[in-house]
Amino acid sequence: MKATIERATLLRCLSHVQSVVERRNTIPILSNVLIEAAEGGALKVMATDLDLQVVETMSAVSVESPGAITVSAHLLFDIARKLPDGSQVSLETADNRMAVKAGRSRFSLPTLPRDDFPVIVEGELPTSFEVPAATLAQLIDRTRFAISTEETRYYLNGIFLHVSDDELKAAATDGHRLARFTLARPEGADGMPDVIIPRKGVAELRKLLEESLDTHVEIDLSASKIRFTLGGENGVVLTSKLIDGTFPDYTRVIPTGNDKLLKVDPRSFFEGVDRVATIATEKTRAVKMALETDKVVLSVTSPDNGTAAEEVPAAYQSDGFEIGFNANYLKDILAQVEGDSVEMHLADAGAPTLIRQDEKSPALYVLMPMRV
Amino acid sequence: MKATIERATLLRCLSHVQSVVERRNTIPILSNVLIEAAEGGALKVMATDLDLQVVETMSAVSVESPGAITVSAHLLFDIARKLPDGSQVSLETADNRMAVKAGRSRFSLPTLPRDDFPVIVEGELPTSFEVPAATLAQLIDRTRFAISTEETRYYLNGIFLHVSDDELKAAATDGHRLARFTLARPEGADGMPDVIIPRKGVAELRKLLEESLDTHVEIDLSASKIRFTLGGENGVVLTSKLIDGTFPDYTRVIPTGNDKLLKVDPRSFFEGVDRVATIATEKTRAVKMALETDKVVLSVTSPDNGTAAEEVPAAYQSDGFEIGFNANYLKDILAQVEGDSVEMHLADAGAPTLIRQDEKSPALYVLMPMRV
Repeated sequence: MKATIERATLLRCLSHVQSVVERRNTIPILSNVLIEAAEGGALKVMATDLDLQVVETMSAVSVESPGAITVSAHLLFDIARKLPDGSQVSLETADNRMAVKAGRSRFSLPTLPRDDFPVIVEGELPTSFEVPAATLAQLIDRTRFAISTEETRYYLNGIFLHVSDDELKAAATDGHRLARFTLARPEGADGMPDVIIPRKGVAELRKLLEESLDTHVEIDLSASKIRFTLGGENGVVLTSKLIDGTFPDYTRVIPTGNDKLLKVDPRSFFEGVDRVATIATEKTRAVKMALETDKVVLSVTSPDNGTAAEEVPAAYQSDGFEIGFNANYLKDILAQVEGDSVEMHLADAGAPTLIRQDEKSPALYVLMPMRV
Repeated sequence: MKATIERATLLRCLSHVQSVVERRNTIPILSNVLIEAAEGGALKVMATDLDLQVVETMSAVSVESPGAITVSAHLLFDIARKLPDGSQVSLETADNRMAVKAGRSRFSLPTLPRDDFPVIVEGELPTSFEVPAATLAQLIDRTRFAISTEETRYYLNGIFLHVSDDELKAAATDGHRLARFTLARPEGADGMPDVIIPRKGVAELRKLLEESLDTHVEIDLSASKIRFTLGGENGVVLTSKLIDGTFPDYTRVIPTGNDKLLKVDPRSFFEGVDRVATIATEKTRAVKMALETDKVVLSVTSPDNGTAAEEVPAAYQSDGFEIGFNANYLKDILAQVEGDSVEMHLADAGAPTLIRQDEKSPALYVLMPMRV
């Protein structure tokens, strides 16, 4: 293999794929990226952790000799980062080594054969549909914070994607809060299996989306694999195994009869919660909300750090009462609400609370209260 | 005590003093800052770790009732950070608590009595002189990176300040490299004792200097304490205990007979070293320099990561030879050299090398080679 590529192109591509590669690997080849130069000037870079695989195609300046090789992902990324801006990088394999040359720098890096590089077998992916990249990014942003980090509840370690009522729904929960995002069912999605996309795949996908928010993403999936294709021919393909488990029937926890409605500005509410939570400690992360006519009084009491209180103007007409929430969970949700009003539908101090921007909002949140 | 102060003023002042306060303290009052409001509108904030003390005076909007109290430094800093921009903060003590009020927020924080707050007894500080803040900042920048982190060699854990030959000299070394900065002896500095300023005092002073680079700093010292006064009346006073030890006679390690002179652009040399060092590992941090007529070839060989080489154009007329240096140590020094040329005075592969911008430069560095 011998190819020449702009340093900026190589760097951008490696910055996409290198985070897929784990820093510590017991299997040496999992530290490497596969680089494949094709006749005609296309250079393909591929990284995998056996559960997740990203393939990106770039335009080379020239491909003098087609071929493929694998080389350390983080090493090549660090080299590309430090090479002079605007330089061209030559990549050439010889004698089980890859020579990297740019300007007055020369590197000779150890390699492993391309045939040893593991590729995820996608199998058939019978369901195919398209979603605008910006919508997919929003779907991730509105739900991912609620993904559980408890490894024993592996079936909650991802975003649940399923079709119901002519809608495509994404949900994530850790048992304390639930986030759901709904969009009209894309053409081709009917009959799709319920799938759970693992956290790391979600995170890598979100990063890739950031650079192509004005395009469409093609999604192909089966019950065990999902593939996201971004940006057409010279693009990125992310393939992830799906979590083999059953996501709980989350619709049961979405309250429907909560009759106390609080409307408040999400920004000033967020800032008020953030301020009073300053004195909260690891042990007491609860913030108390005292609802009164057209106002909420937020307060925190800490045995070590004293007390804090703040009054936030709101629209509230029901009977006054007090309820407590984990301040960080409440902030996570408020941070996702745009516009200048958020609705909290409450029942009582022990019941799950429904939070959403308004009834037309594609995102909906459920938050369990804490005793305060 | 009752006083009102602009949030921005309070925040700026707390950001200066809070880093003096250690995050974990077995003595509770060391977590606190002392706040003292004086008749006439001056508010004094003081923080200490028993070795280092910073006192800053601010102008309050008003002092309704003079007095003093101590309160958690990090808590008050976090609160000030989160309060709305442009707000005024009221601080008032009552019933062993301090009430903090701003906008619609109210905090009640635990306090400890001002009389329990430890103050460093400065004693007499017979030596007094002034140095421009920008010069003092440069003195610190050029030397601090060489301060030893080995706690057993406590006498190397700071910057050595002494007068010799009508000059004030600052030096730091960790046994592998030495950095020295020289300035004309300020009026009042003659007869001053040799002192070693501890690392933390150096770091805090450098931060404070950043905001008053166009002023002068008054330095008062004895053999055991040093005091830096910045920015006149409404200013900051940093007092530090000095390291009780003897700094080694470092002048012996400054080579005087090195007859091989290499001149090179410090920027491209730094970048070349940085690039070839990409493949260096924890175990092999050495970069090899092969000196030839008017060029240097930098190279690194790693059993795991392959090889790297880069040619850097230079001015060199002596016999060619090879010498190795710790890449990070070399980069630390090169990062401190301004201008477009640096001189390396070499003898042989085993001898200390002298590095400086030119013979007029106030900064001088000595670097021990490594076997490669």
